[in-house]
Amino acid sequence: MLKEWVKNENDTVEDISERLEKARFELATRQMMIKEKKLPVLVIFDGWGAAGKGSVLGRIIKNLDPRFFKCQTLSKATDDDLRKPFLYRYFVKIPKEGNFAFFDESWMGEVTYSYLKGKLSDDEYREHIKGIKRFERQLNDNGYLVVKFFFHIDKKTQKKRLEKLKDDKNAKWRVSKRDKWENKHYKECLDVYDNYIEDTNQFVAPWYFVDSSDKKLAELTVIETLIKSIDVALSNSKQNVQVLQNIFPLVKMPKLSEISLDKTIEQDEYKSRLDSLQKKLGNLHNELYKKKIPVIIAYEGWDAAGKGGNIKRLAAALDPRGYEVHPIASPEPEEKARHYLWRFWKRLPKDGHIAIFDRTWYGRVMVERLEGFCSENDWQRAYNEINEFEKELYDWNAVIVKFWVQIDKDTQLARFTDRQNTPEKQWKITDEDWRNREKWDEYEVAINEMIEKTSTTFAPWHILESNDKHYARIKALETVVAAIEKKLEEVE
Amino acid sequence: MLKEWVKNENDTVEDISERLEKARFELATRQMMIKEKKLPVLVIFDGWGAAGKGSVLGRIIKNLDPRFFKCQTLSKATDDDLRKPFLYRYFVKIPKEGNFAFFDESWMGEVTYSYLKGKLSDDEYREHIKGIKRFERQLNDNGYLVVKFFFHIDKKTQKKRLEKLKDDKNAKWRVSKRDKWENKHYKECLDVYDNYIEDTNQFVAPWYFVDSSDKKLAELTVIETLIKSIDVALSNSKQNVQVLQNIFPLVKMPKLSEISLDKTIEQDEYKSRLDSLQKKLGNLHNELYKKKIPVIIAYEGWDAAGKGGNIKRLAAALDPRGYEVHPIASPEPEEKARHYLWRFWKRLPKDGHIAIFDRTWYGRVMVERLEGFCSENDWQRAYNEINEFEKELYDWNAVIVKFWVQIDKDTQLARFTDRQNTPEKQWKITDEDWRNREKWDEYEVAINEMIEKTSTTFAPWHILESNDKHYARIKALETVVAAIEKKLEEVE
Repeated sequence: MLKEWVKNENDTVEDISERLEKARFELATRQMMIKEKKLPVLVIFDGWGAAGKGSVLGRIIKNLDPRFFKCQTLSKATDDDLRKPFLYRYFVKIPKEGNFAFFDESWMGEVTYSYLKGKLSDDEYREHIKGIKRFERQLNDNGYLVVKFFFHIDKKTQKKRLEKLKDDKNAKWRVSKRDKWENKHYKECLDVYDNYIEDTNQFVAPWYFVDSSDKKLAELTVIETLIKSIDVALSNSKQNVQVLQNIFPLVKMPKLSEISLDKTIEQDEYKSRLDSLQKKLGNLHNELYKKKIPVIIAYEGWDAAGKGGNIKRLAAALDPRGYEVHPIASPEPEEKARHYLWRFWKRLPKDGHIAIFDRTWYGRVMVERLEGFCSENDWQRAYNEINEFEKELYDWNAVIVKFWVQIDKDTQLARFTDRQNTPEKQWKITDEDWRNREKWDEYEVAINEMIEKTSTTFAPWHILESNDKHYARIKALETVVAAIEKKLEEVE
Repeated sequence: MLKEWVKNENDTVEDISERLEKARFELATRQMMIKEKKLPVLVIFDGWGAAGKGSVLGRIIKNLDPRFFKCQTLSKATDDDLRKPFLYRYFVKIPKEGNFAFFDESWMGEVTYSYLKGKLSDDEYREHIKGIKRFERQLNDNGYLVVKFFFHIDKKTQKKRLEKLKDDKNAKWRVSKRDKWENKHYKECLDVYDNYIEDTNQFVAPWYFVDSSDKKLAELTVIETLIKSIDVALSNSKQNVQVLQNIFPLVKMPKLSEISLDKTIEQDEYKSRLDSLQKKLGNLHNELYKKKIPVIIAYEGWDAAGKGGNIKRLAAALDPRGYEVHPIASPEPEEKARHYLWRFWKRLPKDGHIAIFDRTWYGRVMVERLEGFCSENDWQRAYNEINEFEKELYDWNAVIVKFWVQIDKDTQLARFTDRQNTPEKQWKITDEDWRNREKWDEYEVAINEMIEKTSTTFAPWHILESNDKHYARIKALETVVAAIEKKLEEVE
């Protein structure tokens, strides 16, 4: 595509200043409109080094109210970023509704440069492309407008600009190793960029090319494209989105009604196994840390199923500097204003660390589904979106363990009544718990569908039979230990 | 993607017969709904030979009213198809609004097989993928629901089925050379199919995999996916679509107001040059025929600009067995019910033949724009859609010549008045001509935009200054002769 595209001579218009002035004004009005309509807009500036991305970005934002946009310079990952999944540093910076986010460089630069430098194999590169396509598609499906610009200059122009920068002692620092390498290997880079652009030129996030040999013209192209794109997005009402087929391998799981809950463990055995498993897990934690393997443990289950106590026994085995427990309640306004997975991306651990989620992203297909907090189309799409999310974690080499803590209805009633009648436990029981209990059957349908559709081979559900809480705790520890041991063997 | 996908064990449900019965009934109701909402639905069945595409298709249509669907077997191109652009035989068979079209094999089979057999180079293959993505995107943008299925079986199952078919003397004919080749080179094919599917898995036309080791299950998957896809499409209102950037190289063109119309030619010179140019063109026509080069000549221009007489002089030079003139009026109901370019695809010549269009697909950005026959978003998108269409013609190695026949407003008035006052010319002038004349200025804006945005290097506009009709005729002939000579040199 990039290779096909050449300078469009008709754009060298004489009245450029006039058009630019008009366009700038119009962009400012669009900012108010996206604010009002709550549209989140992600604008990406990719392109050749010294193509003038930064300077055009600087010109564009001059027209905007700084309260409602953010600029992000993403050309270099921090040490912390490098310990997170590949897409982490981008995902956490997506704009909230009604706001612009401008990215000075995106995942394109990172992936193509790594590939060009031989740090990614062909297969790894292809996996990254798949992940990128999914990411961009998910943004669109969840109401984002994504506009991608590629700033183009030819080899000669780039060389001239880099030399000029190098000669200017105030601007010298702007010339990176990568810029120099890029200019030296211009043709090779062009091939890779061209393929990348073709592969990621999705309808949901199309590419636009910017001839940046003239800065005014570049600015005009960007602003006029933004205005057109925003106008189309604003003119559209919220649509349903096709529900894609799951393509990930699934593990066959039982229905909740098929799970026998009479499993128990003797007190003595419980104590001794708890002790030995906790010790084992403690040791494994060191191994994980040394080998930089991240662990994600997700808990879902009925109210009063014993999640809290279960998590406590697990956490007790871990070095407190190396794990975090995230209790998940209803989303904050900052969170509600973004892609529903954003708040979970934000909470991902560093590699070598463990994150335990007390309730999770599966709220989308349980409480949000049943309470109507999202549309039917939203939760139907979510199974696939969540599998894609967990695939990113898997590709990051994480251990992923998901628990469903299962009890029967009578056991729940007994525990609710006990909580009600025991003063120091009363804080644990709310009217909402009773209301949820009334919807037991509806929840059961939703949970069965969730477990069926999201038990991928790389992130399967594990059922913790928790009528006997001790039994469930031992099983949880055993499951986590086994999952970690398996991963450690794989990375040997 | 295909490689990631494996048999989803959860789908081997026990209640399959019951679900199937329900699904069949529901599909029948969807047929009535798409009829009512005028949704065109294109369903594509691709997959391994002997995977059971045909038999599942046979089962599915049993539930449908045969007046409102068409099945197309597209595994083999006819001799005639092979003389048309690659996408021709598919494009002409797209459904009309409110109807299903089921394609037993699509462009996927043709492209992947040619590529596997070494008949397409890597570059040619990539160009085809680009064309396919554009085609599928255009269908979506123009209101089509496109659902693509890939029927999957493993190598062993395929082999068993092929052998069983070969042993059955009534079914023997079903086993093609390609099927046998495919089974023998299963792994190689899987690689190519997997890449193809990944490359064409666009949001606007997603892939769905069908495990066809069990026919009932395969039927259920297809029907349930169709129902879900149709429901999403029906629940959505007509949306505006992002207007993509032109990526094709453009030729700089003058504005109409910059064209000097005082060019004339002497009567004697006209006659002698007409004569020699017509002879030359006649000879070139033979060359074209021998070398199988198709020619598309498109005429647009003001009313009374002299298109008719111009076309007549051109056609007079040609062998009547090798060309056709297509006068384009407003679309028939059959045409209006489909993608607006369908009626032009249908009229494409065979290779070696010449098609002359008296008015063209550019109606979209002139009369349809100005009279409101399509939405603003429709005509704004059309520049790019038309460039993509002409790119397909160019890739088919066609000579493309587009004429704008230009006169000034006074000349038009003089000719209108003459027509009005000359009994044998009165049929040529209508009230509509006078109404259009009143909109001269609006048309001029639209024409300037059209010429600017669609003068690609591979299909540029040529202005015929036609205040002096003789001058315009000679220039038309010269332009056509030059374009053909250039192409003949290229293919030498």
